[in-house]
Amino acid sequence: MDTHRLESLSDNVFAVAMTLLVFDLRVPISTTHEGLGAFLFEQWPHYIGYVISFVVIALIWLQHHRVFVHLQRLDSTVFVSNVALMLIVVFLPFATSTLASYMAQHRDQRSAAVFFGAVLTVAAAVLAWLWWWIARHESLLRAGISERTIRLLSRRLLLAPVLYLTATLLAMANATVGVGGYAAITLSLLWLLRPGVLGSGE
Amino acid sequence: MDTHRLESLSDNVFAVAMTLLVFDLRVPISTTHEGLGAFLFEQWPHYIGYVISFVVIALIWLQHHRVFVHLQRLDSTVFVSNVALMLIVVFLPFATSTLASYMAQHRDQRSAAVFFGAVLTVAAAVLAWLWWWIARHESLLRAGISERTIRLLSRRLLLAPVLYLTATLLAMANATVGVGGYAAITLSLLWLLRPGVLGSGE
Amino acid sequence: MDTHRLESLSDNVFAVAMTLLVFDLRVPISTTHEGLGAFLFEQWPHYIGYVISFVVIALIWLQHHRVFVHLQRLDSTVFVSNVALMLIVVFLPFATSTLASYMAQHRDQRSAAVFFGAVLTVAAAVLAWLWWWIARHESLLRAGISERTIRLLSRRLLLAPVLYLTATLLAMANATVGVGGYAAITLSLLWLLRPGVLGSGE
Amino acid sequence: MDTHRLESLSDNVFAVAMTLLVFDLRVPISTTHEGLGAFLFEQWPHYIGYVISFVVIALIWLQHHRVFVHLQRLDSTVFVSNVALMLIVVFLPFATSTLASYMAQHRDQRSAAVFFGAVLTVAAAVLAWLWWWIARHESLLRAGISERTIRLLSRRLLLAPVLYLTATLLAMANATVGVGGYAAITLSLLWLLRPGVLGSGE
Repeated sequence: MDTHRLESLSDNVFAVAMTLLVFDLRVPISTTHEGLGAFLFEQWPHYIGYVISFVVIALIWLQHHRVFVHLQRLDSTVFVSNVALMLIVVFLPFATSTLASYMAQHRDQRSAAVFFGAVLTVAAAVLAWLWWWIARHESLLRAGISERTIRLLSRRLLLAPVLYLTATLLAMANATVGVGGYAAITLSLLWLLRPGVLGSGE
Repeated sequence: MDTHRLESLSDNVFAVAMTLLVFDLRVPISTTHEGLGAFLFEQWPHYIGYVISFVVIALIWLQHHRVFVHLQRLDSTVFVSNVALMLIVVFLPFATSTLASYMAQHRDQRSAAVFFGAVLTVAAAVLAWLWWWIARHESLLRAGISERTIRLLSRRLLLAPVLYLTATLLAMANATVGVGGYAAITLSLLWLLRPGVLGSGE
Repeated sequence: MDTHRLESLSDNVFAVAMTLLVFDLRVPISTTHEGLGAFLFEQWPHYIGYVISFVVIALIWLQHHRVFVHLQRLDSTVFVSNVALMLIVVFLPFATSTLASYMAQHRDQRSAAVFFGAVLTVAAAVLAWLWWWIARHESLLRAGISERTIRLLSRRLLLAPVLYLTATLLAMANATVGVGGYAAITLSLLWLLRPGVLGSGE
Repeated sequence: MDTHRLESLSDNVFAVAMTLLVFDLRVPISTTHEGLGAFLFEQWPHYIGYVISFVVIALIWLQHHRVFVHLQRLDSTVFVSNVALMLIVVFLPFATSTLASYMAQHRDQRSAAVFFGAVLTVAAAVLAWLWWWIARHESLLRAGISERTIRLLSRRLLLAPVLYLTATLLAMANATVGVGGYAAITLSLLWLLRPGVLGSGE
């Protein structure tokens, strides 16, 4: 079973999930008392949530792309892990929406931040597991990938769930610190996995 | 008429239908009396419905992929059956939503479970019919598929509607047993059709 | 500019529009007075609308596919006509929803049916124009298409807007006759353009 | 890292964003007092918003296509700029909806028009920046593009944000003039970048 069609299905899921994030932005109703400016300003947690989650999905896509570039064939573990990953990606707009509607107030702020962080941690763990499984099975790997690339990619993909888990634990104490952590980790991972890095197999 | 563009259209439909399942998860409103935890917990039938339907669509995709790998050309029966299949796949988020909103209470539980099961049965029957038609027309089959693979695939694809129908009949007596049956059948079929099995043509 | 990326963009639009049709089906709320069966039954115009529009979009896709198979290069007319076609396809779920919510009652039934028919007529006219333009410009046509195929395809694609316009005019007198006409025309066109027919270039 | 998968992800995002525009059209409820015709007529700012934004996204897609045709490899700047562009494209249905619900009345008309124009300006600026970066790095450019094509494309892509910014400033004084400007600029750019123009590399 070749990898092309699963890759294209996943791409579609990534794209739709990214687009659904916009549904969390409520369109102002022109008859409300306050002005448009005030309304748009009040929604700030939703804008931040929109940007963070958009970048998170772009990062998961990048990691997925990095993994699938080296994959030459599907086995059942890769298939099932990929379905699990898509299930979590599609869940992200929901988690984002929950986070955004609770961040602007005090009650349950931390629960919402922990909930969001847990989703990120699971997504990163599934990706790390997917790569760990592929790297351990030579028959799945495309020829021409160097030992060094495998090692580098493994280290970076395994780092992600550990970092997200740490930030999730911090969110239990302070929601803002946790969410700041998610943002910082996501940007760092984008940097570590950016196109042009990791040498061979690019 | 070649199969590539119909395959890509179907993939898009599968991906969007998968993503739409998340719309059944209601985002908590931060001003309700109960806490976030309690709210998320109350929604459990929707989470279960989300996961079951996501896996069901992934299974239908897998069966569709298995069939289209061996298809070299479209005729009108294949085209129409494929449109019918997509129509049912797009209908699944609606059936899931109906099932989830009725499972948590007593009234109409069984009707909702039977409704959901009927949709699964029809989807499986259309897939079995699609393969049965292709396997009977040599001009549609790609060269290089062994008699054994045809037989194995036929048996597994024909098994699906029979099993789903049985579970639907059970749901008439008891909704929980029926839904448990749908989940068990879906997981078994994923296993029987997993990548790496069925030998030639992989 | 090659045709591949525009074709793939269009396929995505077709797929998302097909999937959005399901949003017209309202999920029953489990606390209403009436039972699930009665609720689902009451929604019959929405189910019929769903099926008709799904098949209509599949037909437009088929016509689009038929046209693009013979296209080797884009010019600005083809690009703009294709954008116009996508704009109408995306509009279809809205027209369907309007039709379905008015068919079950007396007031404005005919206006809704005429509105829907006008959308179908415009879609068919854009497709006919697209093919007429391509058939008249040898530099756009892929080699190997016979004069006979061009003539057959032209006749069938030009037939569509004429038929839909006639049914729209009938809908001004009687909504049910009009909608029945749309269904009959759509099925006949699917048959006339089915895969396997039209000989060369398949 | 090759460009194909990012291009296909972007295409999916464009297609879904285009389709989501239709959500801004409210389906009439058959029980309201006024007739269907009156209802549809009242919604005119939403129809205009739908068409403008659809054409705007088609234009951004065309510019994106023009740029990616000449791209042979991704670096991190291209990747990040592309994510930023998709983020803005997905945001467009929201900006459109805001614009449409304020254009039909007096209060906040100008704020809504400026908000919409700012989104257009940023989108055009990101596209211009993307091309400027690629044109300056020979290793990113596909072979066979002439100096003249680079110069022509640069000029046209850089023109866009300047024009949109001007119209946004005009919208501060008069919303209608501003929105008319956006429409005129979009149509002119479609013309300047239409398929068949720009000579080599088509």
